Order: sequence, then C-alpha cells, then structure tokens
Amino acid sequence: MSSLEHHDTIRAVVWNDGALRLLDQRRLPLSESWLDCHSANDVATAIRDLVVRGAPAIGIAAAWGIVLAARQGVDLDAAIARLRAARPTAVNLMWALDRMRARIAAGTDAAALEHEARAIQAEDLAANRRMGELGAALIAPGAGVLTHCNTGSLATAGYGTALGVIRAGFAAGRIARVYAGETRPWLQGARLTMWELLRDRIPAKLIADSAASHLMKAGAVQWAIVGADRIAANGDTANKIGTYQIAIAARHHGVKFMVVAPSSTVDMRTATGRDIEIELRDPGELFALGGQRIVAAGAQAWNPVFDVTPHDLIDVLVTERGVVGNPDADKMRAEFGA
Amino acid sequence: MSSLEHHDTIRAVVWNDGALRLLDQRRLPLSESWLDCHSANDVATAIRDLVVRGAPAIGIAAAWGIVLAARQGVDLDAAIARLRAARPTAVNLMWALDRMRARIAAGTDAAALEHEARAIQAEDLAANRRMGELGAALIAPGAGVLTHCNTGSLATAGYGTALGVIRAGFAAGRIARVYAGETRPWLQGARLTMWELLRDRIPAKLIADSAASHLMKAGAVQWAIVGADRIAANGDTANKIGTYQIAIAARHHGVKFMVVAPSSTVDMRTATGRDIEIELRDPGELFALGGQRIVAAGAQAWNPVFDVTPHDLIDVLVTERGVVGNPDADKMRAEFGA
Repeated sequence: MSSLEHHDTIRAVVWNDGALRLLDQRRLPLSESWLDCHSANDVATAIRDLVVRGAPAIGIAAAWGIVLAARQGVDLDAAIARLRAARPTAVNLMWALDRMRARIAAGTDAAALEHEARAIQAEDLAANRRMGELGAALIAPGAGVLTHCNTGSLATAGYGTALGVIRAGFAAGRIARVYAGETRPWLQGARLTMWELLRDRIPAKLIADSAASHLMKAGAVQWAIVGADRIAANGDTANKIGTYQIAIAARHHGVKFMVVAPSSTVDMRTATGRDIEIELRDPGELFALGGQRIVAAGAQAWNPVFDVTPHDLIDVLVTERGVVGNPDADKMRAEFGA
Repeated sequence: MSSLEHHDTIRAVVWNDGALRLLDQRRLPLSESWLDCHSANDVATAIRDLVVRGAPAIGIAAAWGIVLAARQGVDLDAAIARLRAARPTAVNLMWALDRMRARIAAGTDAAALEHEARAIQAEDLAANRRMGELGAALIAPGAGVLTHCNTGSLATAGYGTALGVIRAGFAAGRIARVYAGETRPWLQGARLTMWELLRDRIPAKLIADSAASHLMKAGAVQWAIVGADRIAANGDTANKIGTYQIAIAARHHGVKFMVVAPSSTVDMRTATGRDIEIELRDPGELFALGGQRIVAAGAQAWNPVFDVTPHDLIDVLVTERGVVGNPDADKMRAEFGA
C-alpha cells in the first residue's frame, strides 16, 4: 500500500538532543509552534495545560520527563509523583511511569532510561500500525465512519488509534467518508482531527457533536470509531465526554461501535467503569471561545471531560494484541489477564 | 404564586409606535441592543439573520412585518412571500402569515392587521402561561431537568414554551435543578438560555451538549424538556439539532421526554417527520467562534440545524390545548384534527 505514507506525515512528541519538543496543541490549527521541555516539571506542566494530550502521547511525554529528571539528577520519585498527578483519568500515564520506575529499580543509568522511553514511543507507533490493520479489516468497503475527539498522530507516538484505523481503512478503500465531531468544550475534533486529516489528505466533514444521531439516522455512517483513556477489567471504557452518547445512538441505529486503544490503556486493576475517576475541569472552559466571553457573567457550569461507555454498548475492542468482540469480564481476562 | 413575576421579566419582540423593536439575539449576552424594523423587508432580514429566532417569536415578528407592509402600502402578497422564505423549518411562520392573509382577504385595513398581530402576540403569551401550568403539573417535586436550545421569553411573545414549564415548575418548587445544553453551533443555550435564567433568578448549570447522557446516567435529571419548530400529524417533532440525541439518551436512561409548543406548531398537513424540510446552514458556522477561526482552512462540514425526534420517543406533548401522552397519529388527530 504505497499511498499510505502520504496519509501519515505528523509527529507531535519528538526527543531532540536532550530536550522534549512538543507540538503545542493548544495553538493548532492557527499556528504550528513547538514547546521545548527541559525538565520533568516542564513536561508535567505541558501535560496539565494540554500542550500535549491524548492518552498514549501523555504516557510517552511522561516517560521522557523521567529521562530529563535523570539527566538533571533530580529526585526521580518526586518527578514520578508530579507527572502522575498531571492528569487523573488516562491510565497510560501511570503505565508509562510504572515502566520507567521498574527500569529505575534495576539501575538509575540515564542512558538506560532514555532507551526505555524510546522503546515506549516506538512500541506505541508499531501498536498503532497493527491496530490500524486489525480495525480496518473489520470494515466493509465503502463505509462511512464517525469519530470523536482526536486519536491520531497528535494523540500518540504517531499514526493514531481510532484515527489509525481510519488512516488504514481509507488507504485500503474500505472507508469512503469520515465525519468528525467537533468535541466541545476543547474542540479536539474541530481543531486537531480536521487539521490532521486535511494535512494527511483524508477527506472529512466536521459536525456539531449533537448532530451525530441525525447523521446516523441519515445512513451516512456504518461505524463509530473512538479511542480510550482507560478500559476497565470488564471492558467499560472511559473516553472523551460525548463518547457514551455516541455509543447509545450507535446501538439505537444499528451502527457498529469500535474502541481502539493500545493494551496499555487496559487497567485490569479497575473492576468496572464505576471505579474510574472522571476528571472535572474548569467550568470556565464553557464560558469563552477564542478569548471571547459567550456566557453571561455569573453563570455556572458542569464540565466533566470524560464519560464511561459500558462494555455492552461496545461491539469491538481493538488493541495491538487483537480484536475482542463484545468485550466482557471473561473475554477481557482471557486477553489481558495476568 | 406571587414570586412568579420575578421569574418572567424579559420581552424581546416589541411593537413600538409604528416600528418593530427586536432585542438583537446575535449580540446577547455581551450586549443588550435593540434593532428597529421599519418594513417587512427589515423583518425578513432580521429573521433570516437570527436577530429574532425561536419558532413562535418568528411568527409574531412576521405578523408585524405584514402590518409594516400595509402601513407603507407595499404589495402584501410579495411581503408574505418574502417573510415566508426567511426560514424554512418553523411552521409558526407559515401559520402566522396565513392568519394575516385571512385577515387581508377580509379587508386590507391596516388597523385591522395591527389588531390581528397584537392578538397573535397576546395569544402566544397566554398559551405559554397555560403550557407552563400544564407541563409543571406533570413533574414530581424536587426534579432535575435538562433543556436544549432557547425556548424562553426570547423565543416567544414571552415566558416561553419549554422554558415556560421550567419557569412555572421552579416557581412551584417542582423543579430543583436546571441544566442547559450549550446548543452548538449557534450556542442558543450558552448565550441565551443561561442569560435568561440568570436574569430571571432561576439557578442553572450549563453543560456541553455531549455531556447530556453522562448527566442522565449520574441521575441528575428526571425530565428533558424541549420546544419544537414543527410537529407532524403523527407527533414526529422537528427541533434544534441535538434534540433527537437527547430523546434517544432519555429513553435509554428512563428519563422522561417532554415537548412543549403552541398548537400553531402542529402541522397536520405534514404526515410524518420524513416530510419535514431540514434547514442546512452555512458550514462556516462550525469554523469560527467569537470571530476566531478554529478549524484549518480548507475543511468541510455538514451543518443541519434541526433534526426530527420520532413520536415514539416523546413521552408527553404539551400545547395550550392540553397534554397528549405518547403522541401518535390517532391521538394527534383527536386533539388537532379539523
């Protein structure tokens, strides 16, 4: 598939001569500017402030944060604690830090830590390519798909999870139409996914999040394909706010619902979705747009940024290990159990 | 209920000494400015440009547009045609113009037309008060409610349809919590409903549209209450994009779904929702916010601004004539048939 490389040109987390360079996702698509992180603190701040976002990308950035801490001789336990606290919902962050911690326990050589961070990043890219193949193979040719948030090269080491399936499916002629929900309040779909798809020459249309059901009723999409921030031991999946609503609507319309995430997103220590902490962010994210106030002064808001899709609304879970149909506790244990 | 007047202070369509004054809803909540319309053309432009919006308010404004045309000796058939074309989905516009046309057929005296426009406006306010009572009586005390778009004083002669039920329910102690979806792309919920509720001292929280299902799962709301732009003869209801999605989610969670609209919104000549024309607006409404571009140049979008909720997802339809439970073609014929 020689055309595939045309649809995979973006990398957003780059280790560069002792500094971690992050494509500043707060400023896309208006400006493509890079932020250099020189310390674990810089990385933690960048994660908290959404310079870098997307569960896999956050984990990779955190691993590089530990490399920076080691090179500077900073206390590594403190660095791990600081990075761990930067975002509560994404389990990949904890997973990557646990991998770095295990390497530290085996000897705190900075070169070995750099090797581990590089491996985490390379494995994520390879996992995404594999998930792209696995997911695309499930889609009948000529399909329309809806995606939510940004799960692409910007959210990962590259290629993407749900957007990796869309890249692979488009290159293989299986996906004919892509719709992206704008993903309020932070507009990852409008700002990031549309930028990424335009740049990588994959035709797509933006919709308001609330148009998803109308789109399904019109017969325009056969699949909804999303990523995940944390997957519990029974298959319940935490992902960007709005994902749950799409899953309900997909089931109502007979549209298939696919979750795509590396196995590092699976948290077998979390029994069900009820045990996943949902991050509440500043209500002010709903009050202004583009620096302009849109809501009357004195207003209140409720701003959860993730929700949980119960496993019984998920038709397939795709990880780099394979495809799990109709995931439940038994199937999850068989695929991801110790 | 002496406190009710504190929760009903806003009027947005005002006949003032030969001109129609409209509270410019494009500029709320940042600025409370009024636009004076001196001709039917001015009114048609104001309707098209969303200075005035909301199905009942559009009908009232159009009726005053005919009064302006009559006072100026303009061709009334041409004025009716121009006003009719300003928005395609709201049937109240057609209904109000038909009433004015019938009056014209009985004699084109401008004073008689002014009397008719005034009656349309007064009847709408009375209908809203009646619907408020009828709808609020269905709600068990202490309920949380979710609403969508703006259906309040800004969208009607005053008091509102769905928001009228919320006004009445709050004043009566039946409604304890109000959540408003921000209503992308035009943000009627964020900009208008939150302004209206704050101003009229009804506590409310804004949510992203995509948080509605998560809100329902959390048990925070027992009712979703919305307005309507057109109701077909079988009860299928066209309303702001996103309404259909809320109805699906409400059914999924056992949350009751109430449609509130004056009987002028019922269009017995339209058999089902499939026969309702859905207005597609400029994709550019999704590309910029507060004058700032948020989507990469070259992007495409699909921007339907209404959707249709099938009658079997509607638990109750409230009009000024009464309450219809689980509306269908038979019940609609019994209530609204000729």
